[in-house]
Amino acid sequence: MTDSSTTSATGGGRRRAAVSAPDLVSRARAGDARAVARLISFVEDESPVLREVMAEISRNADSSHSRAHPRAHVVGITGSPGVGKSTSTNALVTELRKAGKRVGVLAVDPSSPFSGGALLGDRVRMQEHALDPDVYIRSMASRGHLGGLAWTTPQALRVLDAAGFDVIPGRDGGRGPERGRDRGAGRHHPRCCSRPGWGTGSGRPRPGSRRSATSTSSTRPTVTGPTRVRRDLRSMLALAERREGARKPPIVKTVAARGEGVDEVAVEIERHFAWLTDTGELAVRRARRARDEIEAIAVTALRARWGDVHGRSELDDLAGAVAAGESDPYAAADSLLEQL
Amino acid sequence: MTDSSTTSATGGGRRRAAVSAPDLVSRARAGDARAVARLISFVEDESPVLREVMAEISRNADSSHSRAHPRAHVVGITGSPGVGKSTSTNALVTELRKAGKRVGVLAVDPSSPFSGGALLGDRVRMQEHALDPDVYIRSMASRGHLGGLAWTTPQALRVLDAAGFDVIPGRDGGRGPERGRDRGAGRHHPRCCSRPGWGTGSGRPRPGSRRSATSTSSTRPTVTGPTRVRRDLRSMLALAERREGARKPPIVKTVAARGEGVDEVAVEIERHFAWLTDTGELAVRRARRARDEIEAIAVTALRARWGDVHGRSELDDLAGAVAAGESDPYAAADSLLEQL
Repeated sequence: MTDSSTTSATGGGRRRAAVSAPDLVSRARAGDARAVARLISFVEDESPVLREVMAEISRNADSSHSRAHPRAHVVGITGSPGVGKSTSTNALVTELRKAGKRVGVLAVDPSSPFSGGALLGDRVRMQEHALDPDVYIRSMASRGHLGGLAWTTPQALRVLDAAGFDVIPGRDGGRGPERGRDRGAGRHHPRCCSRPGWGTGSGRPRPGSRRSATSTSSTRPTVTGPTRVRRDLRSMLALAERREGARKPPIVKTVAARGEGVDEVAVEIERHFAWLTDTGELAVRRARRARDEIEAIAVTALRARWGDVHGRSELDDLAGAVAAGESDPYAAADSLLEQL
Repeated sequence: MTDSSTTSATGGGRRRAAVSAPDLVSRARAGDARAVARLISFVEDESPVLREVMAEISRNADSSHSRAHPRAHVVGITGSPGVGKSTSTNALVTELRKAGKRVGVLAVDPSSPFSGGALLGDRVRMQEHALDPDVYIRSMASRGHLGGLAWTTPQALRVLDAAGFDVIPGRDGGRGPERGRDRGAGRHHPRCCSRPGWGTGSGRPRPGSRRSATSTSSTRPTVTGPTRVRRDLRSMLALAERREGARKPPIVKTVAARGEGVDEVAVEIERHFAWLTDTGELAVRRARRARDEIEAIAVTALRARWGDVHGRSELDDLAGAVAAGESDPYAAADSLLEQL
């Protein structure tokens, strides 16, 4: 994605980037969409340059030249594939723009041979915002590489935040609610889910924790009506609530394709953000996320040391012995840790 | 799950278990289903006793008293929830029993408020094998706890293997193909997937790598016929193949509820296992899996050191600074690593 003048991204820093990280960060802060795009490509490529970029962003946050950081409000959009997440996101962007917000859309798809098509589909559906300089839409492939998911999304969000976007609807490729530990876009953030096809024989509902829920009735044939969907969502959320003891999430019925109810969703999102801020929950959740991110980076560095990235290693020998039944995984893990 | 005489499992070893790990392992090896159940409960609970259990299993493997280890053939059963995985598994078990195999079924479900019901459903559907001493059926909840998925499944499989089961169909809760890196049951193993509802508006196909594929036509209404399902599977597998350069996986049309085609599936599974063994792929894949398992155990130990399990820690302070934008995650990860 990076052009030939800045090929250092994946080249391990062997060639100097023509544009420096501090330079790119200040251009992104000034609203330069191409700089934002390049920074997110670094994230996507898990570039070594990111270290410098992230340091620069946190340096900038301290300086008087820039707004307090982080500030953006991240909203997760989730639901099964094909269910209307892009349509919902599109409608939400329109609504947020009416309120004068700068909006950055981040669609995260774990890598898959099919994601190309899905990402393209997003772009087509969101075309109406293509010429708006205050809307930035980005599809990001995640390699799903060794904990990469735990940090690529937060880092892309940090870039968008630094670039001054107010609200960032994060779309997670339709796998969100299924994950045991959701590390995708919008974790610990209000979440909208689109579920027109719910209960139509595609399986039982697979819930995850979410804060704010939208049921999107579309023009698709549905076996179950919106009332049923709402009831299902409610019982699902009740279960989620019990586990987490947090705010009771509102359910808003919308028809995203016609924009119905989307204004109310925007209001509820705002309300939820106010609640997060007032109660201190926001800081708690941001810290929790940062913790996962730091840990993932540290663990990845360790994995590189253990030879997960480079050729044959101590770990390979240990694994061979465990696979052959000659050793057990705990003893092998002990050996690995002794090397630190 | 453990009864009161052996409550040491989750108690951090404070109370001595009335039954020792070596004892349980030898009872499991002798075919005692209750011992197998208890050992898998240890896995489910992520008990500290596992360290001793796994060591004992690998010790036993060396001794002349026991068969070469590992030996069991693990077969992954995957597909969306409600699509017929249990029915397919049930039919496959019947077929494998005809061939005189001892069969251990492991159904892994990431923890969810709904999994209780799903697991119960499995048991009901598999009831016809309940009295067969050569069939052991176990549903296992995984906490999805910090890399726990990466080791609970292999450890449960190791227990079943030690207990002398020949074939272990592993059912993964219907999330298998969606994961970027599939760490569930049957990874690197032949895989059957059931897809009657494919393409019925429940979303686009979400492929994962698989070796052997079954399309199960059931009595459910399907928009697309079996021919279409087969074609979709084929193109999906062609993509998977290109990425991995392995054996071309056969597609077998079955009607699991009536047992049609299941004999052919059993033959293809056998054939695939022979291929894995002959080419040395089996050893390679087992080593790869062991590597992930060792790494997950080591990383979890480190996380405990960093305070992911115990209260406030250095990591919390670092996370707070990153969340406030005062530090960046790379610098924080460096601090964490310096402590090792």
